[in-house]
Amino acid sequence: MSGNTFGLLFAVTSFGESHGPAIGCVVDGCPPGLDLCAADIQGELDRRRPGTSRHVTQRREPDAVEILSGVFAGRTTGTPIALLIRNQDQRSKDYGNIADTFRPGHADYTYTQKYGFRDYRGGGRSSARETAVRVAAGAIARKWLRERYGVTIRGWMSALGPIEIPFASADDIDTNAFFAPNAALVPQLEAYMDGLRKSLDSVGARITVTATGVPPGWGEPVYDRLDAGIAHAMMGINAVKGVEIGAGFASVAQRGSEHGDEMTPQGFVSNHAGGILGGISTGQDIVVNMAIKPTSSIAQPRRSIDVRGQAIEVATEGRHDPCVGIRATPIAEAMLALVLIDQALRHRAQCADVVASTPRIPGKIA
Amino acid sequence: MSGNTFGLLFAVTSFGESHGPAIGCVVDGCPPGLDLCAADIQGELDRRRPGTSRHVTQRREPDAVEILSGVFAGRTTGTPIALLIRNQDQRSKDYGNIADTFRPGHADYTYTQKYGFRDYRGGGRSSARETAVRVAAGAIARKWLRERYGVTIRGWMSALGPIEIPFASADDIDTNAFFAPNAALVPQLEAYMDGLRKSLDSVGARITVTATGVPPGWGEPVYDRLDAGIAHAMMGINAVKGVEIGAGFASVAQRGSEHGDEMTPQGFVSNHAGGILGGISTGQDIVVNMAIKPTSSIAQPRRSIDVRGQAIEVATEGRHDPCVGIRATPIAEAMLALVLIDQALRHRAQCADVVASTPRIPGKIA
Amino acid sequence: MSGNTFGLLFAVTSFGESHGPAIGCVVDGCPPGLDLCAADIQGELDRRRPGTSRHVTQRREPDAVEILSGVFAGRTTGTPIALLIRNQDQRSKDYGNIADTFRPGHADYTYTQKYGFRDYRGGGRSSARETAVRVAAGAIARKWLRERYGVTIRGWMSALGPIEIPFASADDIDTNAFFAPNAALVPQLEAYMDGLRKSLDSVGARITVTATGVPPGWGEPVYDRLDAGIAHAMMGINAVKGVEIGAGFASVAQRGSEHGDEMTPQGFVSNHAGGILGGISTGQDIVVNMAIKPTSSIAQPRRSIDVRGQAIEVATEGRHDPCVGIRATPIAEAMLALVLIDQALRHRAQCADVVASTPRIPGKIA
Amino acid sequence: MSGNTFGLLFAVTSFGESHGPAIGCVVDGCPPGLDLCAADIQGELDRRRPGTSRHVTQRREPDAVEILSGVFAGRTTGTPIALLIRNQDQRSKDYGNIADTFRPGHADYTYTQKYGFRDYRGGGRSSARETAVRVAAGAIARKWLRERYGVTIRGWMSALGPIEIPFASADDIDTNAFFAPNAALVPQLEAYMDGLRKSLDSVGARITVTATGVPPGWGEPVYDRLDAGIAHAMMGINAVKGVEIGAGFASVAQRGSEHGDEMTPQGFVSNHAGGILGGISTGQDIVVNMAIKPTSSIAQPRRSIDVRGQAIEVATEGRHDPCVGIRATPIAEAMLALVLIDQALRHRAQCADVVASTPRIPGKIA
Repeated sequence: MSGNTFGLLFAVTSFGESHGPAIGCVVDGCPPGLDLCAADIQGELDRRRPGTSRHVTQRREPDAVEILSGVFAGRTTGTPIALLIRNQDQRSKDYGNIADTFRPGHADYTYTQKYGFRDYRGGGRSSARETAVRVAAGAIARKWLRERYGVTIRGWMSALGPIEIPFASADDIDTNAFFAPNAALVPQLEAYMDGLRKSLDSVGARITVTATGVPPGWGEPVYDRLDAGIAHAMMGINAVKGVEIGAGFASVAQRGSEHGDEMTPQGFVSNHAGGILGGISTGQDIVVNMAIKPTSSIAQPRRSIDVRGQAIEVATEGRHDPCVGIRATPIAEAMLALVLIDQALRHRAQCADVVASTPRIPGKIA
Repeated sequence: MSGNTFGLLFAVTSFGESHGPAIGCVVDGCPPGLDLCAADIQGELDRRRPGTSRHVTQRREPDAVEILSGVFAGRTTGTPIALLIRNQDQRSKDYGNIADTFRPGHADYTYTQKYGFRDYRGGGRSSARETAVRVAAGAIARKWLRERYGVTIRGWMSALGPIEIPFASADDIDTNAFFAPNAALVPQLEAYMDGLRKSLDSVGARITVTATGVPPGWGEPVYDRLDAGIAHAMMGINAVKGVEIGAGFASVAQRGSEHGDEMTPQGFVSNHAGGILGGISTGQDIVVNMAIKPTSSIAQPRRSIDVRGQAIEVATEGRHDPCVGIRATPIAEAMLALVLIDQALRHRAQCADVVASTPRIPGKIA
Repeated sequence: MSGNTFGLLFAVTSFGESHGPAIGCVVDGCPPGLDLCAADIQGELDRRRPGTSRHVTQRREPDAVEILSGVFAGRTTGTPIALLIRNQDQRSKDYGNIADTFRPGHADYTYTQKYGFRDYRGGGRSSARETAVRVAAGAIARKWLRERYGVTIRGWMSALGPIEIPFASADDIDTNAFFAPNAALVPQLEAYMDGLRKSLDSVGARITVTATGVPPGWGEPVYDRLDAGIAHAMMGINAVKGVEIGAGFASVAQRGSEHGDEMTPQGFVSNHAGGILGGISTGQDIVVNMAIKPTSSIAQPRRSIDVRGQAIEVATEGRHDPCVGIRATPIAEAMLALVLIDQALRHRAQCADVVASTPRIPGKIA
Repeated sequence: MSGNTFGLLFAVTSFGESHGPAIGCVVDGCPPGLDLCAADIQGELDRRRPGTSRHVTQRREPDAVEILSGVFAGRTTGTPIALLIRNQDQRSKDYGNIADTFRPGHADYTYTQKYGFRDYRGGGRSSARETAVRVAAGAIARKWLRERYGVTIRGWMSALGPIEIPFASADDIDTNAFFAPNAALVPQLEAYMDGLRKSLDSVGARITVTATGVPPGWGEPVYDRLDAGIAHAMMGINAVKGVEIGAGFASVAQRGSEHGDEMTPQGFVSNHAGGILGGISTGQDIVVNMAIKPTSSIAQPRRSIDVRGQAIEVATEGRHDPCVGIRATPIAEAMLALVLIDQALRHRAQCADVVASTPRIPGKIA
């Protein structure tokens, strides 16, 4: 294993480069008997797909998924589910100029140092194209979590560069290209992005993702806490530079009398913990924030070096997302689903016989 | 495995409860031939030890470590290194009152929900006492990283509650109980803590930890990126609620033209990346921030429930750190060391034969 | 992970059913810079392919492999190598009759008990068709072992049912359908098989596989000994019921004065150990034997039950190997290669810095 | 991880050397709520203990186990269970003479080649003393398997060197030092051993181990089949050179019409499969055989080399078992228990929701 498998019991092994023949994954450990067809996965893929608005890369990929194994007569069999997505619109000539140079802020340099050379076509393995695979695998996890435990996962963009996006309504999220939970703000976001493209620059974003309905008890102390697993998952998404659970960095300045969520027989009074205590779910909503850096491939000229170590200037042409955060919401949701299903399986492996000695209180006070 | 092993190749398996006979760990995978004795580990343990100032818990633990295996004639043999720390000052009677109640913000409730019951003495397995084990294992990792690669790891407190602590000098860090890199600020920190204790409350903190000298190439795409591993490690420390690499959440509002670190033959021009691109080390300093929540065990009365689900009030007496962040610096350093040694070993497993095709540039411009 | 990944550092994740759209695998952890093309893999696949003699199943599968990722400009990049083999000759109607019945000695019953139902087409996931994937992945491992360390792996059939096959010459192995190292015996083997088919029965076989050139030092005590890894690999091949290293079961009746291989500066005097002591390679040839049971799918009527638990008679029509051992040699070679490359990578992860304090002696006296 | 952890979900991490301060292990993943005290473990340890008859090593070790963690109020808590056994009777002077020489057939040479040097005291980590740890961990697994599923595990010696030991009665097993299921044969075994010691030689043995009551469905295809896991476990015991499931090597000469176990509504008609089909338990008894080589440390002079590669003669004095197989039965039982509990937990992780669509038939016809 060199880092391309995610999960211990629900294990996703990913493969594929941006401009190779295909990307895909093998999902090993899915419980048997889950109703599953390609359409269940395709719906999630379509939410992440490039080329659906002017604010994202114009690469045209249908991202059509094929299920190669593990499903029989419409149900998962318990054996590995292989998913295949053929690359269609590679247009490799666009990227010829980056074969010999390293983009500032990009993995070009580090892949070359690690492996001795790199597949430079479209960023190769370091391309965010790989994240389609996570969304596909995550779709299976989400379906099982929803059907088996009633868990629902929902993410949104909570900041676009300097613009904070207050949560107005979950219904707004899927009505705009940004996954913004505030339809009124969308014109402002669009105007910001239009200006950004003209300035040949890129910008960061903050994504929030939540899970509702997670029962108390998921997560494994000490090192594989639920929050540690989420941090691992989210920081493992391309361009993520920070992860928070619940109050996150705000908890630095909080007092214990404010932060510690009081409990009553009617439920928790607050949720600064973000649904996790001691690395184990409390039954409250799990709340995660993540910071996404600005795209490193921009058309402005910047100082760099070439493969011989000589000083050069790099200006990256080609079809790049000016804000990779715009398409990140489905990816973050998928990763949260992958963490949760894995912990759900781990929990019932060890604790299936546990008889609760104590009542569960509701996730929150109504 | 239910979450008590950290690392794939340099694997630390931890055990022990706050008030059981002992805590300890087994370190499997340490390279042979490293000079090692108990004193190498004890020095690090002493930095984390309780009872060394009035600002931390007054529990008196010598934290004396015994090496049970894996070292012969003063050198590691390549076989498992078992480390044992006997608990001394358990004073279990202090904690009898928490057997039947759940402290707000504490793992009492979630452990009970997960396992059906819990070892309530001093928090049992959820106690921060477990972190001594990480410091002990981390001491071995740090020694190897320093001797083999010249890597040095250094952490400090960068904020105590609402008080920002500007970095003045690394020499200051070990001169005060807070690991504050700014001796001039220490009186203010002490006054703040004295007031906090009087108010029967607790507070959060922010810890920064860095690694210097990491060669480019460590870290494994896609899911086991170096930054994902660090996030996993840090979020797995008790009370951590947020992790940032490099610019972290500040990158949300940054433009690509600002964030992307330019490169020159003389070195990188900036380090917004925090030393990691595409999940692989760049050769620059690795820079990590983490948010530590306020201690949940406070003496103020708070609303909660008991094991029968009845409403009660809890006021936690006993010996607790009013700011667990104060002793967190050595723990964060240790976890970073554990991540790095594991990735170092993984890197040479796969890439030992790689011949660099491209020059390495210095970590930063002098 | 539910058992479809083999190897810790050179990790093969397999997928696919006998009559689904495709079989394949993802190889994660291959060192970068290895020259690799589809033809390198196809050659090995062709040795295992069905339909090449009258003594094996007449299913016609070209077993054409496609490399989907991980190779760029003719070299492995260090990222996952996905291999895809489309199924061609499924003829599912042949197998309709087994949907509701369990063949004696077959996995039909156990898959149904485990997962609640099964993909009954051609045995689904339990089909030996999956072993093509191992051969494909093993071809990559073999190439690297040969080029990097000079390791060569060679297997053969050492018994076909009651017929012992004395080793005459390695050159004979690839000249007959049985991988028999004794061309003179081939007519007898063919006559035996012709009689067996007429009797509507099947038979077992013994396969021997060796590795030459393995340096001393590979293998990890205690639980992941090299021999334990080999036993795991070989017993994990369909139909294998026994595994021996070196003297194997003959060592039960041996005395220590006979079994323990004496050493001289010129080399080892014998090799009862089969090249492994204390779970670590000695530098001598690694020698493995395995027992392969007779095919369970035979045309003779046998007592069994159906899915409702009713007594029935089963006579399995369709295209089955009357001796699965005939095509097992390339599979056993592949599995040995997978074990060795994984241990090679694990060894250099931990012990890359070891300086030999003691001379190595030759594998055997010339 | 460098090979000292066994099991994925019920994970045993072992440490310790023959002549270091202690041996022990950490058991991570034990289900909570199991009644457990030291006596439950001590009973099993006492069966393996040295010095209990004249036919085994005369080293005097009480093998007293201490539970350091993971048990509270007499029940397992779900957190890691650390077990500690202090070494008592090291008498290191006995072994000084082997510091510079390599015993034929022993791990001395391979450890030195792997790690550069070795802890030569009593064989260090390669000593069979480590197997006490397995017996201790296995005792926990056995207790859970018995109480939760009614699984019983029973092993015995089925051959001592050239002497076959026919199974007479299970009641005989614990009445003699050999674990022979045939009390009438014990005088012959004792006479054989007395002669062997006089000849300054050692001999091999065959051990059989069975599990009764395993439900159908445990084991994970493809690579982690139940039989593959058993082979891995057994070949990982010191001195084991061969492993068979069910008919084992006898299946080479069997016909399919003989080997394939017929099924009836009243149960299976035979058990050539040894309780496993397609890598999954059938519900019949699991039957395993293993070959144990003769002890390599014998007092007869033998040719070898020293650490400088010079030819020498080695005659090993000290306290060694003349047949390590004599004490192997409890170890084999423990390893089978560890495999089974791990697969039990893995099975319920993935398949806890499976509703049987087909009746289970009894393990065997009454």
